[in-house]
Amino acid sequence: MSEKLIGSCIFGQSGGPTSVINASAYGVFKAALEANEITAVYGAAHGIQGVLKDELYVIDEEDPKELEYLLHTPSSELGSCRYKMADPDVDDTDYKRILEIFKKYNVRYFFYNGGNDSMDTCSKISRYMKSVHYDCRVMGVPKTIDNDLYGTDHCPGFASAAKYIATSCMEINKDARVYDNDMIVIVEIMGRHAGWLAASSALASVYGSGPDLIYLPECDFDMDRFLADVDAVFEKNRKVFVAVSEGIHYADGRFVSEAKTSATDGFGHAQLGGLAAMLAEVVKNHTGAKVRGIELSLLQRCGAHLASATDINEAFMAGKVAVESAISGESGYMVAFERVMKDGAYSCSYKLLPLESVANFEKKVPLEWINAEHNGLTEDFISYVLPLIQGEADVPKEDSLPRYARLKKILAH
Amino acid sequence: MSEKLIGSCIFGQSGGPTSVINASAYGVFKAALEANEITAVYGAAHGIQGVLKDELYVIDEEDPKELEYLLHTPSSELGSCRYKMADPDVDDTDYKRILEIFKKYNVRYFFYNGGNDSMDTCSKISRYMKSVHYDCRVMGVPKTIDNDLYGTDHCPGFASAAKYIATSCMEINKDARVYDNDMIVIVEIMGRHAGWLAASSALASVYGSGPDLIYLPECDFDMDRFLADVDAVFEKNRKVFVAVSEGIHYADGRFVSEAKTSATDGFGHAQLGGLAAMLAEVVKNHTGAKVRGIELSLLQRCGAHLASATDINEAFMAGKVAVESAISGESGYMVAFERVMKDGAYSCSYKLLPLESVANFEKKVPLEWINAEHNGLTEDFISYVLPLIQGEADVPKEDSLPRYARLKKILAH
Repeated sequence: MSEKLIGSCIFGQSGGPTSVINASAYGVFKAALEANEITAVYGAAHGIQGVLKDELYVIDEEDPKELEYLLHTPSSELGSCRYKMADPDVDDTDYKRILEIFKKYNVRYFFYNGGNDSMDTCSKISRYMKSVHYDCRVMGVPKTIDNDLYGTDHCPGFASAAKYIATSCMEINKDARVYDNDMIVIVEIMGRHAGWLAASSALASVYGSGPDLIYLPECDFDMDRFLADVDAVFEKNRKVFVAVSEGIHYADGRFVSEAKTSATDGFGHAQLGGLAAMLAEVVKNHTGAKVRGIELSLLQRCGAHLASATDINEAFMAGKVAVESAISGESGYMVAFERVMKDGAYSCSYKLLPLESVANFEKKVPLEWINAEHNGLTEDFISYVLPLIQGEADVPKEDSLPRYARLKKILAH
Repeated sequence: MSEKLIGSCIFGQSGGPTSVINASAYGVFKAALEANEITAVYGAAHGIQGVLKDELYVIDEEDPKELEYLLHTPSSELGSCRYKMADPDVDDTDYKRILEIFKKYNVRYFFYNGGNDSMDTCSKISRYMKSVHYDCRVMGVPKTIDNDLYGTDHCPGFASAAKYIATSCMEINKDARVYDNDMIVIVEIMGRHAGWLAASSALASVYGSGPDLIYLPECDFDMDRFLADVDAVFEKNRKVFVAVSEGIHYADGRFVSEAKTSATDGFGHAQLGGLAAMLAEVVKNHTGAKVRGIELSLLQRCGAHLASATDINEAFMAGKVAVESAISGESGYMVAFERVMKDGAYSCSYKLLPLESVANFEKKVPLEWINAEHNGLTEDFISYVLPLIQGEADVPKEDSLPRYARLKKILAH
């Protein structure tokens, strides 16, 4: 046990929102408010930007009941940012400012919630504070629907998005098969570089109402092979359900969504409707069937009403463990998840990873979990994802609509 | 009490699917299976097409537990159709065929579940059977997310879609306000002629996280006024959330979604992404802000995981009342809903409307429920819709994913 460090803490949220990022906020706030070592708890408005601008919400002033509502409030309640920090060895302007703010509020604990880039920010701040001998413990709290953080079994936010995607695909599949006609549906799912989310649509297929074909950015996309796959299912069933990652790309690296003109699709004007609409047009021209393109859009990452209870709990724990570890003397780590399977039952244990080992790496779907035809997932993937989506979110309601946290957001000064 | 009529029954589903049309199926099946007067229960594959093709599922052969799962299985489990019947006085080919099938299976009860067109089908069959003195009781069971059936306070299917839309808009609103930047979101909601569904997004606003502006097909759309509305909100908040009915149209009747070239939007190529993408492009060009178009697409009508318990129960009752009324001697009616408000508490009573009074009329959102600026709803609308969305669907689960009915679908012969 290291020396007691007494002072205030700042928590910030960064990157794209998820259904459960606020559950991590609650984990941090609850543990920090209860800790004797932490004298004041601040929430940064829009992540590190709020620190730079001296826009910090006084969490001690919030009603504890409202903070608890954060467990089921989607998106980043404090506001988020996409702010790339300079290398402190090259330009330390921002870091000097952060140090100034840390000194102003006697900040001795800094918790940052986000994905790859946020862990990079976290790592740089940690390094800088050490270099100027300012005693501050810095911890990363993982978050990303993309599930692409290195060194952790999975990431908070992913499972809830996966559950939303699987459930929605089951429903879409029911809807799309209702008429006695030819019908092809193409659903576009988030995931620019890693295909975890599109892969999760395979859950719907396992439970009897999902996609026939799934394409991930882990494999090169070939339009002719894709159309042959569609033809094969179409000839058999007259209905085809396709799920695609937004990030699918040709062998030369061009995103399919950006390949505005191609010999195969044969039309050359700007795409307004994204990948699903573009592929729908190609498939319609090819098959003559009715084709509908559907983009799950923002809903897949903010559909908190369908969040996984497992995910909510783990997100909360990630925040709590970050605070407890920092108080016990740790710094410069990200909380990570380890899968424990005992007698077939899943549980999650928490560990710490050095921030620099996490930042700027991307974990992709293992190729051995993708079928030989590159248009579906194996049972190994299902075994991986299934435990993570278990349990229903017990969303508080007001007149049968979600009741979100209503924070006062009083600025510190 | 009229004379007892003994024989079998056919139930069919028609038109676009909803989250609760199968709850009505269960209401019909349960009541019919329990009725002594009904000797066999058949479900028509793809509505009236299944009757014409002699494709009838033997419901008596189904496991009662699986039938109960219909309460939470979205879309039309028997299959649906969009089949316009000829006037029997002009061309009675189809009717003769239906009579042949009715005689083959001794069908004395016919229940048809659908919207305007389906009530028209129902009405014509009823009229024909009377004209040929074939004793058969014909009842319509209402269904439409569009909520546009005449003579009923509301329609089964509408409230679940409304609840899905309101909840999703609350989530989208949270997501879209997360960054400290300019952001405009345009959500496209179903409703070609009546704006009930887009109007329901106003629920999200009332509960603190919804659209700033809502446009319905009940009022003529004016692009310049729309852009001025957007500007006003944008200047104040830097964030704008717009909800539009897919059916919004200019004063001359042209759908905005089909107005491919206009002086205002200024681009002339084919729209692939629908209305939301088209308006997003117009607003982006006008404001320079980041704009995201979102189409709720099929999910709003098949999102059974967010169905209203009130809606499920009323849909079930609509089917049950249809069977009970027919057994008691009624024929040629649609079951309709009457709102009963007692000491501020909502309940629903059931009544019968002559089919010919319902068929082919469309009920729109009353103009007095739309604000003076034609970009929002009044409190009267909220009071109308709020009781209908109450109660959560208790969806059966299998590994935390929906467990849908698995029917054997054994064909009669």
